[in-house]
Amino acid sequence: MAVEKGYHIAVVGATGAVGQQMLKTLEERDFPIQSVKLLSSKRSAGKKIIFKGEEITVEEATPESFEGVQLALFSAGGSVSKALAPEAAKRGAICVDNTSAFRMDENVPLVVPEVNEEDLRLHNGIIANPNCSTIQMVVALEPLREKYGIKKVVVSTYQAVSGAGLNAINEMKEQTRDLLEGKEVTPEVLPVGGDKKHYQIAFNAIPQIDKFQENGYTFEEMKMINETKKIMHLPELEVAATCVRLPVETGHSESVYVETEKGGATVEEIKELLASSPGVTLQDDPANQVYPMAIDCVGKNDVFVGRIRKDLDRDNGFHMWIVSDNLLKGAAWNSVQIAESLVKLQLLK
Amino acid sequence: MAVEKGYHIAVVGATGAVGQQMLKTLEERDFPIQSVKLLSSKRSAGKKIIFKGEEITVEEATPESFEGVQLALFSAGGSVSKALAPEAAKRGAICVDNTSAFRMDENVPLVVPEVNEEDLRLHNGIIANPNCSTIQMVVALEPLREKYGIKKVVVSTYQAVSGAGLNAINEMKEQTRDLLEGKEVTPEVLPVGGDKKHYQIAFNAIPQIDKFQENGYTFEEMKMINETKKIMHLPELEVAATCVRLPVETGHSESVYVETEKGGATVEEIKELLASSPGVTLQDDPANQVYPMAIDCVGKNDVFVGRIRKDLDRDNGFHMWIVSDNLLKGAAWNSVQIAESLVKLQLLK
Repeated sequence: MAVEKGYHIAVVGATGAVGQQMLKTLEERDFPIQSVKLLSSKRSAGKKIIFKGEEITVEEATPESFEGVQLALFSAGGSVSKALAPEAAKRGAICVDNTSAFRMDENVPLVVPEVNEEDLRLHNGIIANPNCSTIQMVVALEPLREKYGIKKVVVSTYQAVSGAGLNAINEMKEQTRDLLEGKEVTPEVLPVGGDKKHYQIAFNAIPQIDKFQENGYTFEEMKMINETKKIMHLPELEVAATCVRLPVETGHSESVYVETEKGGATVEEIKELLASSPGVTLQDDPANQVYPMAIDCVGKNDVFVGRIRKDLDRDNGFHMWIVSDNLLKGAAWNSVQIAESLVKLQLLK
Repeated sequence: MAVEKGYHIAVVGATGAVGQQMLKTLEERDFPIQSVKLLSSKRSAGKKIIFKGEEITVEEATPESFEGVQLALFSAGGSVSKALAPEAAKRGAICVDNTSAFRMDENVPLVVPEVNEEDLRLHNGIIANPNCSTIQMVVALEPLREKYGIKKVVVSTYQAVSGAGLNAINEMKEQTRDLLEGKEVTPEVLPVGGDKKHYQIAFNAIPQIDKFQENGYTFEEMKMINETKKIMHLPELEVAATCVRLPVETGHSESVYVETEKGGATVEEIKELLASSPGVTLQDDPANQVYPMAIDCVGKNDVFVGRIRKDLDRDNGFHMWIVSDNLLKGAAWNSVQIAESLVKLQLLK
């Protein structure tokens, strides 16, 4: 049976930055796989990828690709997910979608296993993987919610270019090299591939991730706001976000201010709580200059938390610095973790 | 008379990153100067600097250097200011000190001319120039304070390496070059010259500026907190700060959340208010991707404000993005501006 030998899976967007990490994570976790299909757009079809020592040819994703597939991991852009995830689900696959296509759909669970694993039971064939910057924040906030309740969150992000794909990584490196050699640069990718203007990311900080909405917030900021409420089941939670792109290759950092419902917690108590929380590694020893940094989190699955301080004016206010690999916990690892939870909860048949 | 021909001035720390900007700014503003002494530590004495087309030899700063000096601009580190500013003041000079030595001294005005120029009248020979990250924030907050009152500020900074001096700039560039060539790097300067450990700044974000205090906040964070209250004459204002160093050469950015006393202001009203405020340039047109960025502020005296948004949960909450050249408004220009205010208020005799 499938459960003994493993599952028939498909990875859609296998050639992208996140797709590559998904394959690596599936290998590392030794996820039970009987067969794997690597799917992509027409443009990337025909490419060959080594998975578990075997060369696999990437095929163009079509509705029929999902016949016989039990688990499909999507990371090929919102339009691909919108077109094909329902087709895959119709054919019996459970889809874990890493795009924003279905995240706010009330029929689609939006899941970070450390926070709301049980929501998986409510799926209708599609499960959404939240936005990278949201995931790492809620992993650190959930233990506070559980113990003290939380009522207000203000986050400012420091986000890596790999969140914008391989083209953005290449642009950052080329641009940096050119500037150090005194050459002129012509930005073409960042801050947002499809937007009207492009700006220099090298030696700069760009306060725009994704396009702007009518209300002056970017879509990235609204994702953090709306997804946090949905994942944590706190529709009344106050959340505000300012999202900023930095010349960092991988690893998102976040400066988070949080107000708890109950006051009186000490920094020591919060450190102990987070140190023993799932998916969190505490790195917080100011006297020895120990705190999380983007360059240190790369390749690791955990969310790293440090710089925990009590607000100097409010007894229920705390500040913290949250760092994680945006391609792993922010994307590939969270998706694979959802797949593992589906197995654990016996939802994958 | 001195006033007709100009003043006898001294610049202490003339060879440093800020000292160089001070000389440039004095030239550009055509500040009335009769004579100028360029002073430094023993180590830099003997260097030659061109000022207003004239070659001047840098001399070692001693108490006697200040005989006959009317205005002394200090930017050579806190210990130099502590030792020599009182000596200069004793000899009749007014000192504008760019270090943290006297900022929280209750007998020393801490001045940002757009905010509290009148405090200059209370000087006793020494006037302190605030910390770079504080200055640009209070310039943007003061119009809000005046019109609506403000009660809470939460800031996360995105600070450039030039705030840590020429060595830090060189380290960032060398390190970036080496990493792009695949070489190993050995950080020796950042995050803090005199601290125990040093970390890679290239392609990273370091949540430490200045050393740590017992309470888990860095000195930089406490400067922002304490100086803001002092400059704005708001001892009860709630201020919290998280200060982060980025691989940016010049130009500090700040993500600021502010709660006003009076609710009901619209984003449009705040944009109009800031657009007409002294020292502020509004850059805020999301539909056209117009917002302030570090690379655009370099060499300019103003504080640039954009990304102004109303908090989605609180009618009196606003978010904004504040950017300024940390060597100019954050240091040299604010010091020269103080000197100009001293002339205007007839305090420089």
